[in-house]
Amino acid sequence: MAQNFDRRDFLTAALAGAGSMMFSSSSAWAAAERYPAIRKAAEAGSEAAIKRIQDWIALPSIAAENLNMQEGAKYMANLARDAGFDAATIVPTDGHPGVFATMDNGAKRTLALYFMYDVKQFDPAEWSSPPLAAKIVDKPGFGRAIVGRGAVNQKGPEATVLAALHAMRAAKVKPPVNIVLVAEGEEEIGSPHFHQVVQRPEVFAALKKAEGIFIPASWQDVNGSVAVNLGSKGVVELELVSSGEKWGRGPKGDIHSSMKAIVDSPAWRLVAALNSLVTPDGNNSVIDGWFENVRPLTAREKELLAEAARTADEQTQKKLLGVNRWVDDLPYAQALERLASQPTVNIEGLVGGYTGPGGKTILPGRAVAKLDLRLVPNQTRAEAVKKMRAHLDKRGFTDVELNVTGGYDPTETAEDSRIIRAELATYKRAGVKATLNPRLAGSWPGAVFTAPPLSLPAGHFGLGHGSGAHAPDEYYVVESTNPKVAGITDAMLGYVDMFYQIAQVS
Amino acid sequence: MAQNFDRRDFLTAALAGAGSMMFSSSSAWAAAERYPAIRKAAEAGSEAAIKRIQDWIALPSIAAENLNMQEGAKYMANLARDAGFDAATIVPTDGHPGVFATMDNGAKRTLALYFMYDVKQFDPAEWSSPPLAAKIVDKPGFGRAIVGRGAVNQKGPEATVLAALHAMRAAKVKPPVNIVLVAEGEEEIGSPHFHQVVQRPEVFAALKKAEGIFIPASWQDVNGSVAVNLGSKGVVELELVSSGEKWGRGPKGDIHSSMKAIVDSPAWRLVAALNSLVTPDGNNSVIDGWFENVRPLTAREKELLAEAARTADEQTQKKLLGVNRWVDDLPYAQALERLASQPTVNIEGLVGGYTGPGGKTILPGRAVAKLDLRLVPNQTRAEAVKKMRAHLDKRGFTDVELNVTGGYDPTETAEDSRIIRAELATYKRAGVKATLNPRLAGSWPGAVFTAPPLSLPAGHFGLGHGSGAHAPDEYYVVESTNPKVAGITDAMLGYVDMFYQIAQVS
Repeated sequence: MAQNFDRRDFLTAALAGAGSMMFSSSSAWAAAERYPAIRKAAEAGSEAAIKRIQDWIALPSIAAENLNMQEGAKYMANLARDAGFDAATIVPTDGHPGVFATMDNGAKRTLALYFMYDVKQFDPAEWSSPPLAAKIVDKPGFGRAIVGRGAVNQKGPEATVLAALHAMRAAKVKPPVNIVLVAEGEEEIGSPHFHQVVQRPEVFAALKKAEGIFIPASWQDVNGSVAVNLGSKGVVELELVSSGEKWGRGPKGDIHSSMKAIVDSPAWRLVAALNSLVTPDGNNSVIDGWFENVRPLTAREKELLAEAARTADEQTQKKLLGVNRWVDDLPYAQALERLASQPTVNIEGLVGGYTGPGGKTILPGRAVAKLDLRLVPNQTRAEAVKKMRAHLDKRGFTDVELNVTGGYDPTETAEDSRIIRAELATYKRAGVKATLNPRLAGSWPGAVFTAPPLSLPAGHFGLGHGSGAHAPDEYYVVESTNPKVAGITDAMLGYVDMFYQIAQVS
Repeated sequence: MAQNFDRRDFLTAALAGAGSMMFSSSSAWAAAERYPAIRKAAEAGSEAAIKRIQDWIALPSIAAENLNMQEGAKYMANLARDAGFDAATIVPTDGHPGVFATMDNGAKRTLALYFMYDVKQFDPAEWSSPPLAAKIVDKPGFGRAIVGRGAVNQKGPEATVLAALHAMRAAKVKPPVNIVLVAEGEEEIGSPHFHQVVQRPEVFAALKKAEGIFIPASWQDVNGSVAVNLGSKGVVELELVSSGEKWGRGPKGDIHSSMKAIVDSPAWRLVAALNSLVTPDGNNSVIDGWFENVRPLTAREKELLAEAARTADEQTQKKLLGVNRWVDDLPYAQALERLASQPTVNIEGLVGGYTGPGGKTILPGRAVAKLDLRLVPNQTRAEAVKKMRAHLDKRGFTDVELNVTGGYDPTETAEDSRIIRAELATYKRAGVKATLNPRLAGSWPGAVFTAPPLSLPAGHFGLGHGSGAHAPDEYYVVESTNPKVAGITDAMLGYVDMFYQIAQVS
């Protein structure tokens, strides 16, 4: 469910003020200057790096459509081998395979990488250039970008990490950390089998040695700023289904609406069940026991959020979202606290009966609400589902089906973990303003790493910019014309420096 | 909104027991025997009558698509002229034209006919034979039937009335009543301009002279039985729309669902607004003042319903509907009273945000509920809309849009009116069991006739069988193999006898 973190523009907009330092690929930045041979190799390899992304985009793996899944896993493994991983094996699961690769550089420390080789579905008719053609176009304010499905989510950033390893090898520099790579092909369907990859003894053993794990990201905003998230909310996606079939009242199928006078309505029942879940303003869960494991914000978390509120641009954030006011007309500082601290019950979609233009006089036999629940520590997905079920049952809605379609537990990563400190050091050396965010309001499948028994620090890291995950015209900037934002070469060097920071932080 | 009465199978199933008398096109039925020359002409003309329906089906007029509207009106006028109407003129409206025709037979009494020349949209891919080809196929249990869009709704029954007039002319028998025909081309979009046709001075004057008006119908069930409705519920179709745009809270468009923590949800607001409209079981309106003009059933209405309950087949009705129990587990007699007497607030459809398979983590900027309200005397469409608006406003939902897409007032026709007595007499002479139904739970645009200033008795009349209005494979039986159900020749003779009954009843 990459959509949970890919559309995080609002978060960088929310949490990042204007970057005050210049990031320029034409000027030397601190990190790069320490590795002149690698910079030279990265520059020489940038054309090949761009082509590597384009070629990868041409082979879309889509788990929901069972499209190119074996091919995609093989391609992923080959990409890893080409980048210098010693071994890259395809790991079968009960679903589509994962990939596991290691690169032993004889280093003291190990860093892990989380990749996905699948992409979201797409409709070519909605795109301004063919989504598999990976055409390079101008993106005003940013530079030249690859447009294609998977460009930013996640083939572009992932291939840029691989390009960094290619550059180091070309420069005959051995990475200062050992690297473990785990990849899956089911991220876009909610990672239903990825835990099977992680639980494989050899994978688990390799990951256990790591300082932490990150998924490559290209989250620099137009001011070059980034957010470093110390965790993310969990999510449960589910459908509530009310049907005459299950209820034993109302019609099994759609019938003529005049019968409403004597036939119960599954659609009205769905409305009543939904109405029982939240406060009248729709802003707070009233599900029995919902808050009992919600951990309040710590003093440090509040401090970080207050700092973010001081520097963030509320008006830009509101404009980006098309929102005039926050819930309860909260001031921005309190809104940001709420964003980080509060679990949610959201309606993603309502669908029942006749949904076309105009009307159709039917009494529908079935109605569905698609919900997503955002969870904060120490809530869990299993707990949330159980509590919602019990809440509905207690109110007599035992017939209303609760079908979970996916979800993850929340994640937490300590601010003093080596990976976070290394990220902050890397951003600082690159002249990039990085704002510590106690908790991403979105979600990602990181709990498989952060939860016991692995208990790895985990997050997102990377320089560069891209956008449009899951949307038409998804793009990834390769040649930056914005002096505050990294192009592909500087993004490669950002990963290189991150390897060094992991190796060096105390 | 012909769907309101076309899908009335449930009503005949509900109200009609097994026909005890034989109806057979091969045996002589009473009515036919009185007009042997007309029967002979009807038999001779049946092939032409079938072809007339087929040719008409080949020219679909669809108001929603502005398809063949002028052509359809001309065709309708020509059909009337060919059937012997003295004059048939196209009547312009602010929308699509109507048709007005008269046939002065120098008779003492006048009968009016209501026709529609438009048909419902169709998707040929869903049909087993091309919907404009009007192929003749076998319908087990009934006989040979024309399959095509408009076959039963309403070209088949309408052309059968015209065929009856052709047969009378061929037999050199002058109809015993004067006939007025009014037709519209916007029935399927809710008759928004038909009142303009009726209000034309010459049309109004002609209709005012009539004993009553009927729309031809072919409602015989498999047992040959029919229902005679003494009125119909009114209907309002509307959409309730909750949007960030109008509300000034929540997002203007769809945003990432993680923002629910600080952004209001138009979808939750729609749920709250809906929830305010009905009792928790969804079965009764709690809209302020909703029942103040509801006229309780009269003793006679209750008597008719009790009679219907005694002879009706509840189990067949439940099976047809796919319903195990009525609201509140009512016994059938009470359910039928409720069906006739109670106004309804029904959800036809819910649509908002993501409606495809699986989930999509968005907070939708807009959500819509499509409702239909069924009204009983003395409620009116205008009153119902005003009360729902006031109810929502009073509870603060001033931003929730209420967009009416169509509707009609309820109708009532006196049991002792000449047209009802003539219908009952005709059915009786044909050996058809006719059950008096105080009120059709469905709706039709008859209020334009039954309300002042016209105040005409109005309803549905006809022998024969067809089904599938608005659905694929809509059909109209032309050659009956069911001895209880009329084929096209006997249906023609039914209309002939109806003319005589109108002329003869006291």
